[in-house]
Amino acid sequence: MTILERLIHHLSKLPGLGKKSASRIAYYLLNADTSYTESLSRDIKELKEKIKPCHICGNYTEENPCSICTDPNRDKSILCIIEQPKDIQAIESSHGFQGLYHVLNGVISPIDGVGPEDLTFLQLFDRLKNEQIQEIIIATNPTVEGETTALYLVRQLQGTHIKITRIALGIPLGGDLEYADSITLARALKGRNEIG
Amino acid sequence: MTILERLIHHLSKLPGLGKKSASRIAYYLLNADTSYTESLSRDIKELKEKIKPCHICGNYTEENPCSICTDPNRDKSILCIIEQPKDIQAIESSHGFQGLYHVLNGVISPIDGVGPEDLTFLQLFDRLKNEQIQEIIIATNPTVEGETTALYLVRQLQGTHIKITRIALGIPLGGDLEYADSITLARALKGRNEIG
Repeated sequence: MTILERLIHHLSKLPGLGKKSASRIAYYLLNADTSYTESLSRDIKELKEKIKPCHICGNYTEENPCSICTDPNRDKSILCIIEQPKDIQAIESSHGFQGLYHVLNGVISPIDGVGPEDLTFLQLFDRLKNEQIQEIIIATNPTVEGETTALYLVRQLQGTHIKITRIALGIPLGGDLEYADSITLARALKGRNEIG
Repeated sequence: MTILERLIHHLSKLPGLGKKSASRIAYYLLNADTSYTESLSRDIKELKEKIKPCHICGNYTEENPCSICTDPNRDKSILCIIEQPKDIQAIESSHGFQGLYHVLNGVISPIDGVGPEDLTFLQLFDRLKNEQIQEIIIATNPTVEGETTALYLVRQLQGTHIKITRIALGIPLGGDLEYADSITLARALKGRNEIG
């Protein structure tokens, strides 16, 4: 196997890439600036060496604790619970949240053999005990597993003073009622808000 | 800029990738096996160091001349003219050609300031003089520039004993007459072959 064939083989394993797009990228790299390919190569190599989970929230970070946990301007009374570190990036780019995060590192999924003990609930309960958190926003995905995980958390926190909320589920902006699935539509109706 | 942001920025410059798919790949790499990321990183770095154009045909190769030029089983009397080294891969995977190649490294394109002198025509004419080539197949793309380049080559070789052919242009297999553009359809009719 030549280096070109091996690179195409490796690239085609990346999510969203097939053999054709991998081959297109490999030939693009052959003609790209050496400074670009060397930087790309170095970043891929150093990525796993330099980036570790934040020991407080589980966010991927080069500094531990991460820049969100140490930011004095963030609201330390609100905690957003997400499944994966990459969900933080999505929420941050919405500019709709100024609190802290807690990464579960997955969702409860009996079919995949993932129970609550495999996720970071113990760390979460420690944080709720030791930090001044007044509200948690459950932002797991609106899937069966995500909903199960949300429900588990609600039950575990029953009787505490902490306010528990769930991100709104409904029709996405720019969406069309005609093409919305019936479950989403039912959730959108149930979650209706007064306006005007 | 963190290493993760920089990697996403670099990845999003690759052909076919946007910011979202680049981010997806970066997070995938974070969770991938170290052996995989290290191999990928090394291949990207070494790609440009190890792969050079074959001095005979212009194919990308780790050994010079390339494995096609040195293969004793290839038919040395037929030369296929293509625009880019990656076209060789496409033709090779069709298993429809057993001759040799010549890479032009582009097409004649006055609008981009590319004239015949910027392509490898001189090397091609040298090969036609020194090698025992009886037929050349012009396999430039069926674009305005590709057709112009083919026409230029036909004119340059007028009066020589070499047979000049052009790959068939027509309806692709599995294509539909209804959706074929009129120029393709006209070429398909003009290039009709007797059957039966």
